[in-house]
Order: sequence, then C-alpha cells, then structure tokens
Amino acid sequence: MIRSVIGDERVVLHEPLFRGNESKYVCECIETGWVSSVGAFVDRFEEDLQEITGAKKAVAVSNGTSALFIALKLCGVQQDDEVIVPALTFVATANAVAHCNAIPHLVDCETQTLGIDPHKLDIYLNDITKRVGSDTVNKKTGRRISAMVPMHCLGHPSQIGPLVDLSKKYSLKLIEDAAESLGSYYNSQHTGTFGDIGIFSFNGNKTITTGGGGAIVTNNHEIGKLAKHLTTTAKVPHSWDFFHDHVGYNFRMPNLNAALGCAQLESLDAFLDAKRRLASTYSEAFSNSEFVDFVTEPENCKSNYWLNAIVLKPEYQDQHDATLEFSNHQGIMTRPAWKLMHQLPMYEHCPRMNLEVSESIQSRLINIPSGPGIILGKIEP
Amino acid sequence: MIRSVIGDERVVLHEPLFRGNESKYVCECIETGWVSSVGAFVDRFEEDLQEITGAKKAVAVSNGTSALFIALKLCGVQQDDEVIVPALTFVATANAVAHCNAIPHLVDCETQTLGIDPHKLDIYLNDITKRVGSDTVNKKTGRRISAMVPMHCLGHPSQIGPLVDLSKKYSLKLIEDAAESLGSYYNSQHTGTFGDIGIFSFNGNKTITTGGGGAIVTNNHEIGKLAKHLTTTAKVPHSWDFFHDHVGYNFRMPNLNAALGCAQLESLDAFLDAKRRLASTYSEAFSNSEFVDFVTEPENCKSNYWLNAIVLKPEYQDQHDATLEFSNHQGIMTRPAWKLMHQLPMYEHCPRMNLEVSESIQSRLINIPSGPGIILGKIEP
Repeated sequence: MIRSVIGDERVVLHEPLFRGNESKYVCECIETGWVSSVGAFVDRFEEDLQEITGAKKAVAVSNGTSALFIALKLCGVQQDDEVIVPALTFVATANAVAHCNAIPHLVDCETQTLGIDPHKLDIYLNDITKRVGSDTVNKKTGRRISAMVPMHCLGHPSQIGPLVDLSKKYSLKLIEDAAESLGSYYNSQHTGTFGDIGIFSFNGNKTITTGGGGAIVTNNHEIGKLAKHLTTTAKVPHSWDFFHDHVGYNFRMPNLNAALGCAQLESLDAFLDAKRRLASTYSEAFSNSEFVDFVTEPENCKSNYWLNAIVLKPEYQDQHDATLEFSNHQGIMTRPAWKLMHQLPMYEHCPRMNLEVSESIQSRLINIPSGPGIILGKIEP
Repeated sequence: MIRSVIGDERVVLHEPLFRGNESKYVCECIETGWVSSVGAFVDRFEEDLQEITGAKKAVAVSNGTSALFIALKLCGVQQDDEVIVPALTFVATANAVAHCNAIPHLVDCETQTLGIDPHKLDIYLNDITKRVGSDTVNKKTGRRISAMVPMHCLGHPSQIGPLVDLSKKYSLKLIEDAAESLGSYYNSQHTGTFGDIGIFSFNGNKTITTGGGGAIVTNNHEIGKLAKHLTTTAKVPHSWDFFHDHVGYNFRMPNLNAALGCAQLESLDAFLDAKRRLASTYSEAFSNSEFVDFVTEPENCKSNYWLNAIVLKPEYQDQHDATLEFSNHQGIMTRPAWKLMHQLPMYEHCPRMNLEVSESIQSRLINIPSGPGIILGKIEP
C-alpha cells in the first residue's frame, strides 16, 4: 500500500529538498566571506522564524538539543530538579534535562496526539506531589519538579492548551519541544509559542533544514535577549574589547547554515502543502486496511505531517519488527518509534508513571516515507 | 608602520579567504542532498586532519568549545574538580571547565610563548598541592586537581614538552587547547598531539574555517571512538532502530560545514606560507621600533602566526587603549589580548596564582591584521 503512494523507486524516510535559492545564498556567503557566527542571513532567518511562528523573538542556534538545554537553563531548571518529559520522544528531550544535571521524570502519552496525556498527568501530579512554598515537590524523591517539556510528536500538536493550564496549576515552567513541528498549529496558533519558551530543530531530516541547526522562540523579551546573549559566548558588545559577563555557550548558528535555512523557508509553504497532500493520499490508501491505522492530525489542529506513521492494530502487533525488516529490505525506508526513554540504560531508573499507552504505541508504530520531494519531485522534476 | 605592511585600505583582523573549491564542494552537498549530520565531507575532513596533525583519530564537531567540553569529560573531569587553565586565554577555555561544573584554576604565562609557564607552575603546584592516593589535591580548597589545559596562544606553541612532564609528575590529564594553532609545530610535532586529547577551532576568524566548527584529536583509539560516539547522540548503529547507550550530545559538524573545511584545508599550506611572509614583513617593519616588540615564534617551534601581535614596551603601556582607539578609527582593525579570566565576573573568585606576567602582557599586547588575504589578495587578486 505504501508503494501505491510513493511509486516503485527506493525511498528514504525524509530527504531534504533543495529547489530554490539554497546554492545561491550559500555561495553568497562564500563570496562575501560572511560564513561564520554573525551575518545577514542569521538575522534574516531569525526574523523569518518570528514572522512564521508569531513569536516575538527567535534565536538561531546550533541545533535543537542546545536550544532545549538553554531553554531549561533560562527557565531556572537547577541541578537535581525533576523535569516532566514524555517517555515517547527522541532522546534529545531527556538528554537536555540530563545536561542540566536534572532528572527526567517520564510520563505517558495519549493515542490521539501521541503527546503527553494532560488528564492522566493531572491525576498523577495530584497524587505524587506536594506544595512546598511556591515549589511543587515529588513526595517520594523529595526533589523539586520545576518544568515540563511536552513534545509535539512527529509534528502533531500535543494538547498544549490543557498542558498550559496544568503548568500553571502546578507552578511548572513550560518548554515546548517543537523540534518536529514547524508549520503545525493548535487552535490556529503556531506550536512553540504557548509556553515560556519553545524550540525548533532544523536537522537534515526535518521539514526544513540548515544542515544542523535549531532555534529558541519566546514571547518574553528579556528571555529572548538573554537567550541570544548566552548562546553567543555572553560577550558584551564593544568595538574591540573582549568582556564576557556570564558563563556563556557557543551555540551559534553559522551564517552559512542560516543562508541554507533562509532559502528553505522560502519553500516552507510548498513543502507543507506537499506533505499534507502526501498524508492525505496515505490516509486514503490505508482507510480500509485491516492491519493498520494511519495517524492523522488531532482535532482543532493543523499538523505539518512531519513524519507520517501507521500503527498496527493490536492483533497484528507481533508483525512490527518483521514489517520494518521487510520494508527496509524492499527499499522503502521505515523506522519504529524511538525506544521509550525508560528503555534506555541511562534513563531506566528515572522516576516515571505507568507508561502503558506509550508502550503500546511504541510496539506498534511505524514511520513511513514523508519527504516533500515524494510529491514535489514528481510534478516538478 | 602597520600601514607600510598592509597598504592603505581598510583591513580587518583576520578575514577568511575562499579561493579554491569552497563553493564547488558546498554546492555538491546541496545538489546531492547531503548537508546534515553525516556525509562524505565529514569523513574526509576528519581524515585530512589526521594526516595534517599526525593524530591517530580526529573527530569533527560543532566548535572548539564543544570539543573542549567533551575532551574534559573524556579525561574524567568531575563536578567540583579544579582544572589548571591559563589566565591569558579566550573565555571558551574556562567556560568548557565551568560547563563540566568544575572550577578553572588560573595560572600565569611566560613572555616568550604567551603560554603557561611550566617552571612557575611546578613551583606553585609543589607548594599548594598534596598527594591523596593517586590524586593531586589543592591543600587550601581540598578539591582534586584533575587536568590541565595549556592553550597555544595566538598560534604560538606553548612549552608543551615541559608541560607534559609536569602533567605526569602531578598525575594530571593534559588537554591541549590548540584552537588557534592549526599548522603550528613544537619540535616538528604538530600541536594538539602531545597530551591525552587536543582540540582545534574552525571559527570564521581562524586560519581555516568551516563557518563554525571544531575538532577533537587523540592518539588513543578508545578515546577517539568514544569522542565520536558521545558527540553524535551516542546512537548505537542499526539499520532502523533507535537505541542510545549513553547521555550523548549533539555536537556534530554538518556535512555542509565539513565541505567548506575540506576546500579550506586544500589551501592550508598556501595560507600558512602567506601568514609567515606577513609575519616576517611585520617583524622587519617593527625591528627598530622604540615603542613596541613584535611577537615571534618560540625557539624550536614553527608557528602558524595565527594572530600577529605587538607588545608595547613597558614605558609606553599607557598608550595601549589610545593605540587601539586610533588604529580602529583609522580602519586598521586591532584588538587587545582578551580580558584575563580573573577579570571576568564569573571567574573572579577562582583559585589562582600570582598572575603578574599575564597582567603585564594583557595591558600591553595588541593584535594586528593577520589574514592570509593580506598577502595572497595582493599577488593573486
């Protein structure tokens, strides 16, 4: 059935597509000498992201992981804090927490959005936490829970409205891991702009790419300014002197990479349109399948359909690995959901709730080819 | 006198020069779609670095700071350890230590190399440390001193031979911050290859650039393998599964940036030659100056002369800022040495020795234009 949509050739999962000004802008950097840590394309890329997402401030950085790490720092996450993280996510979400010497606290997702289940989380937090001053403290570990990081899984918006409410109820900072969801909207508002800070990734497998890259977005002017300052070595502007006022980081996105990103953003609408058309074709092809369900965008949401996914019906769960083996062998690149965070050795002892929904999805979900070129490559070769 | 060397135009401190295959290789990435975290240029760039430096293993990463951070981690630097760092260095050296939640312990440099003074350090360590088991412990703070990070300042090799001896005497790991010294040799051996690990930077202001980038080099096969693994999210190779066995980092150098680097390395010999010729011209121009001394390569060393520097004679020290103001105003980009680490608010309380040589140099040194294009631009426009 995948073949009926993608045709007979070898197809990878998500290949970048360069059909605009990519070479032109990148060569412009080389011709002018502006390839490195500052440049007009960095400024433009940040402005473009602000316009697309509606966030007041966007800061281009080296990748999604560094964006998340800085976001956690800026939200005041301290060593030995716990941070609410979905078990079903790419490892970077948990790693960024660990890089702060904090502890991921793993929670379950729900079937429709694949994101954190707000209802289940509310019951759980109500049960396991107590209030100590203005902090929410895990009664069992005694540690402060300082933030939550919902992740918009495969590009589908999580139930971010109820999650924002929960973050207020339990005084948690809210950082949206929107790494996969550029071009995805919840109630017509762009993902990444609901919490204190949001982050995006522009790795090579994402909807648009800068080679490697990411961004921090926020509506808080002070946080935005500090994000730029901390990710660019915390140097105080001066025409020749070298004075740094914080322990800063070098998480800059080079102008060369931003140039690629600016060209890619010019094609974003076309990519999103192509990806919706592909998803719609898949949806139709799988509509009468007795084996699988196709994952569609949640209600009141517009998804970028970053990675299309099918979920084996429970009675066919045991065909999961065989399906992956077979399709990859046939030249159709597919992959499973990530191993859940508690299935990885470094996070197996992290505090966690019952994760039965995540476990069920993880054992049945399969991502299928989703690049914009599958549609656009055919009509405009 | 600077004008007699560089001519009448506006000249910046160190501009990158692209006169080879830069655009070709970068466009090749875009045409083939291989712009991101793996690719043939990443492999080639690492192999080229191994050949140039003689190191058994080179790992390309996102920048020099991330290279240093991973190097410290791989050398076993723990939270609350102290790490010997020169006071006269770019802030990244101290930041990488702070990123490990360790404490920079600041030491003085000597006039000839601008690097750590091994003789002074030996006397100091002998005085302030005691042996506890196999550890060297700071008697005053009670903290373990676990490593030292000499920095080859402005591209001039430090006295790395005696520093290696000291690292053995005091059981310290030795990480060479060779960020500035690609193409610099101590006793005919490339800088960065003497200690346990060495690091390089390919920021836009360096001898060659990848836009933003760095590398870890080592002669230890196991460390090299782990460096690659940890900087690429610690993913265990598998055709479709996502299993990570460590808290990894995303410090990958994108293929797009490595492509630029491969083209730049093809010009390295020409750049180094041009920079030596420029240094030699400066040296001659300043040879009879009553105001300044020109900084030349140390004995038994070959320097890449990354940034040329003049040092005001002590009696003209008070002309330092005025000289900087005047030359920058005239369109000759000059800059002072970095603020010493203990002059920055986040490191002002770090343990330190008497830093009188660093302080004297810092108040008198001025970097002057040093890009390879100053020579090559003239003869091959």
